[in-house]
Amino acid sequence: MMDQSLSSDLLPVQEAVNPEAIDEAPPAPRSFLDRLFDRGLLIRTGVDGLYGRSGAFESVVEALDRLVSRIGAADGAEALRFPPGMARSSFERSGYLKGFPHLAGTVHSFCGNETDHARLLACLDAGEDWTAKQAATDIVLTPAACYPLYPVAAARGRLPEGGLLFDLQSYCFRHEPSLEPTRMQLFRMREYVRMGTPEQVLAFRELWLERGTTMMRDLGLPLAIDPANDPFFGRAGKMLANNQRAQALKFELNVPVNSEDKPTACLSFNYHQDHFGTTWGIEQADGTTAHTACVGFGLERITLALLRHHGLDLDAWPAEVRAQLFG
Amino acid sequence: MMDQSLSSDLLPVQEAVNPEAIDEAPPAPRSFLDRLFDRGLLIRTGVDGLYGRSGAFESVVEALDRLVSRIGAADGAEALRFPPGMARSSFERSGYLKGFPHLAGTVHSFCGNETDHARLLACLDAGEDWTAKQAATDIVLTPAACYPLYPVAAARGRLPEGGLLFDLQSYCFRHEPSLEPTRMQLFRMREYVRMGTPEQVLAFRELWLERGTTMMRDLGLPLAIDPANDPFFGRAGKMLANNQRAQALKFELNVPVNSEDKPTACLSFNYHQDHFGTTWGIEQADGTTAHTACVGFGLERITLALLRHHGLDLDAWPAEVRAQLFG
Repeated sequence: MMDQSLSSDLLPVQEAVNPEAIDEAPPAPRSFLDRLFDRGLLIRTGVDGLYGRSGAFESVVEALDRLVSRIGAADGAEALRFPPGMARSSFERSGYLKGFPHLAGTVHSFCGNETDHARLLACLDAGEDWTAKQAATDIVLTPAACYPLYPVAAARGRLPEGGLLFDLQSYCFRHEPSLEPTRMQLFRMREYVRMGTPEQVLAFRELWLERGTTMMRDLGLPLAIDPANDPFFGRAGKMLANNQRAQALKFELNVPVNSEDKPTACLSFNYHQDHFGTTWGIEQADGTTAHTACVGFGLERITLALLRHHGLDLDAWPAEVRAQLFG
Repeated sequence: MMDQSLSSDLLPVQEAVNPEAIDEAPPAPRSFLDRLFDRGLLIRTGVDGLYGRSGAFESVVEALDRLVSRIGAADGAEALRFPPGMARSSFERSGYLKGFPHLAGTVHSFCGNETDHARLLACLDAGEDWTAKQAATDIVLTPAACYPLYPVAAARGRLPEGGLLFDLQSYCFRHEPSLEPTRMQLFRMREYVRMGTPEQVLAFRELWLERGTTMMRDLGLPLAIDPANDPFFGRAGKMLANNQRAQALKFELNVPVNSEDKPTACLSFNYHQDHFGTTWGIEQADGTTAHTACVGFGLERITLALLRHHGLDLDAWPAEVRAQLFG
């Protein structure tokens, strides 16, 4: 286990100066994102926060996914995998639009006839907006891996004694175009979700706070565990955020990736109290409302943290780190 | 290698009758989709064609993905992985809206202020349409795994002598709600894409027609290779479809899954001629327009074909099939 403090040196952001160009004006410093593009680890699409991934990048994402599975294997979680979209009716009921209307992505489609189609193509040819002719479908992009789970769990009836534990992973969408590579619009989140009594779900969160910290230290990453809040919308959202912090409902495991000053939340540990239990009518064995908690792993964010701290050449990563991931 | 003809028996659609209920009215036959729900292999979301997957279902999808990788390994394809959304500007240029406006899914988001938010929530509470307040983002759901690739390939400049070969996989969206489990709105497509001379890309397609047939026979699936066409929109689309067939541009490897009469395309082999080369300005080493071809594997469809022909209990699948997938 490597113990690195938050103040450990980051790799320099600027590429080594080309010695043949030493007499010329120094090149502008390349951002971390540009260096990822230069090395082909991420691939430009023309949209900020929307990138292709190289085979090497994916190999780290997959290795992290396996590592999380190994760490949680003994718990016997039920694995479920949902596609990157969920039912709009479930999304509406979830309450997401109250807190995060600006991050949601609804899926719209063309529902017209051939005349409408001709008009759509004419708009497209003229460089005019053709998307107003799209109508909302029954599908909304998944905002967090656990959102499609709650209605499914509720439909099964009361929880057994001891509650339930689920293992999830999916692509998630958040509409927040950014040049920070750690803030992607489409990214993968691995999650474990616990449902049961307050004691059960808090013990689960405690366990993963420890496990997550150990996992990240073993990957050679400097980290800090901090109280946190979700990015609630608007002025009313500020109050929700303050409440969340005051009640210590959310913690994040932060690693400096883009900068030392604004470290990146790579894991998050959330106690929802009875929010989802009440919303979906999830009941414990004794009929009282279930509490829930989740731990979420930002798979692209941890991958980027590894690239930032161990370099862009995976083969040159410390042997202990490679052993954890690929051993 | 198991050689099964198209006429080989399918497993009975109806579940075995419960002997204790033998004197009661016989239960209505359960559809294949209902049996998948009953066994928990697929999970209802309330939207036709949008399902969760159990861990067992996913283990088959992942095994198929690995099997395809093994079959293609010696070719040295460059692996790229794109998220389930692509840039709207690329999507618009691709020509997809000419042929398939009805299948596309655009991603819309809320871009208003706090007053707009209050109105949105009021609509939601009143059960009124709140989605009209959403505006199109820069992102469109990926309609086929190869669509985000072409602009990336074009941006790299002329192809090398010998052309290029890519390996892709992503969740894809098609707006076609259906009760056939093989017609999902969100599903994964694995693809290899070849770019080069007409001879190079046709040889690639020939190779995968053989490899794909062998793969599916080795998985114990009855199959037929048939000329096919894409589901172009409208009356003008009929002509495009006829052309596509007349020129033998598209073949599908079909397996009976939902029914014997309407087998399901599990693999497709497509020669695009210079369509994408011209659209994106992809040039061969000598400056002439590149031709392209792709082979696509419908990972959920092949999984469903295996479940249909070998039964819903993975552990009871033939040893030869399990060895191919999990050996």
